[in-house]
Amino acid sequence: MTVPGGSAGLQVVAPDGVPVLTRGSDVAAVLVPFLANLRWPDGSVGVDAGDVVVISSKIVSKAEGRLARADEREAVIDGESVRVVATRTYEDDARPALRIVENRQGVVMAAAGVDASNTYPGTILLLPEDPDASARAIRRGLAARLGGVRPGVVLTDSAGKPWRAGITDFALGAAGVRALDDHRGEADDAGRPLESTVVAAADEIAAAADLVKGPTGGRPVAVVRGVGHLVTHDDGPGARGLNRTGPEDMFALGTREAWELGRAGRPLP
Amino acid sequence: MTVPGGSAGLQVVAPDGVPVLTRGSDVAAVLVPFLANLRWPDGSVGVDAGDVVVISSKIVSKAEGRLARADEREAVIDGESVRVVATRTYEDDARPALRIVENRQGVVMAAAGVDASNTYPGTILLLPEDPDASARAIRRGLAARLGGVRPGVVLTDSAGKPWRAGITDFALGAAGVRALDDHRGEADDAGRPLESTVVAAADEIAAAADLVKGPTGGRPVAVVRGVGHLVTHDDGPGARGLNRTGPEDMFALGTREAWELGRAGRPLP
Repeated sequence: MTVPGGSAGLQVVAPDGVPVLTRGSDVAAVLVPFLANLRWPDGSVGVDAGDVVVISSKIVSKAEGRLARADEREAVIDGESVRVVATRTYEDDARPALRIVENRQGVVMAAAGVDASNTYPGTILLLPEDPDASARAIRRGLAARLGGVRPGVVLTDSAGKPWRAGITDFALGAAGVRALDDHRGEADDAGRPLESTVVAAADEIAAAADLVKGPTGGRPVAVVRGVGHLVTHDDGPGARGLNRTGPEDMFALGTREAWELGRAGRPLP
Repeated sequence: MTVPGGSAGLQVVAPDGVPVLTRGSDVAAVLVPFLANLRWPDGSVGVDAGDVVVISSKIVSKAEGRLARADEREAVIDGESVRVVATRTYEDDARPALRIVENRQGVVMAAAGVDASNTYPGTILLLPEDPDASARAIRRGLAARLGGVRPGVVLTDSAGKPWRAGITDFALGAAGVRALDDHRGEADDAGRPLESTVVAAADEIAAAADLVKGPTGGRPVAVVRGVGHLVTHDDGPGARGLNRTGPEDMFALGTREAWELGRAGRPLP
């Protein structure tokens, strides 16, 4: 989007009042009236084909009935995990162990993404079973109700990362959004081709939306305008490709876990 | 920022035409005319006290003369590093070793942040010596030229992260911005207090700005509007506190490095 004066811009708007969803809710049907009435700083209304609708995966999990009893938390995390990366136990208090795992969605994160905030008392929420598939279904539902307008869809979750304090939102699922924006070969400002610049654009979209949505759950949806170059007609491969595990992963085990393997004379996995 | 219709919003605008800086350039003085003429989607012009001016650290490094000869790259990385986290060598091609290190700025990242893109041929750019101090100086310079208006300032760089493909921008330095936005104790949408939600807000601001600035260097500055709740009168502690190393760090060494220490019967650092 070019604005007057020689500049580029981005706008993010998050509607108030989106209701709490329950099992069986049609996410797209619930969101459409809020999206259709969205008011932008420039006075325009509604959602366009080049916009990206960013949705907290929590509400998708609720609609998909992905909840469990809070007292089964550890077993649920086991079931959601395909590989344990690192574990930390706290001897001095009642906190449960922190487990960094690769989950069935392919993301390495704490507790497999199983979380107790913004859910019903006594329950915990699991991530959507297949976040890219959920994003595609929501996109289809939006297009059907928006007269064929097909904005991109990103589903988000929050996570911490190594070496960094605090949590940020990331793209857990996507449809119609180029999750990786490959700038290799473009000229830098010295005229030379960029060699290795592949931007995790869907993660940056998730982060931008989180600044408006916030973590309390009251605004689970935001629309990002100004990234139309990342929105595709086809749904594309989604966000799963943002995960990097396997031979490229230099941190497949926590430091202590790897050290203990070595000390025991056992090979790395 | 509240927009009509019950919603919250964010705007990001990046001016075109910011010139390439050289050693001794006054960053604030160069930026002020671009900021003063910034045009927003809602028709307003200029920069306000609640805005955050997000600046690629590359242009600050150039102004501070933080460059070196490209053929001294490995020695420069040594000098910028305080601790090696992980190393990967490539036997099958001419690429230099990949070194993940903690640098003198406190950030764990590849090559200590030393980079050859968007710089002069034959040279490499180092990160600013003290990015928070640079952010504070730029903020002072902006306020002095903007009639006392004191927007927040964030300096950014790009980095990859474990388990994730692609790079994203993060906050390398900050002044007048609450880098960590602590929501602990606020009620979630079930009315219960959030227990552990501390958002790396400055990193999310950096990511939002990168969607507009882009990696080619032609738009090294963006202004983010709508995060006034994160802008403080005092400069505050900056972005250094976003780094998490020490006892809290479960990935202080790469998997292979830790395993080899264990195999050799040596203790973890």
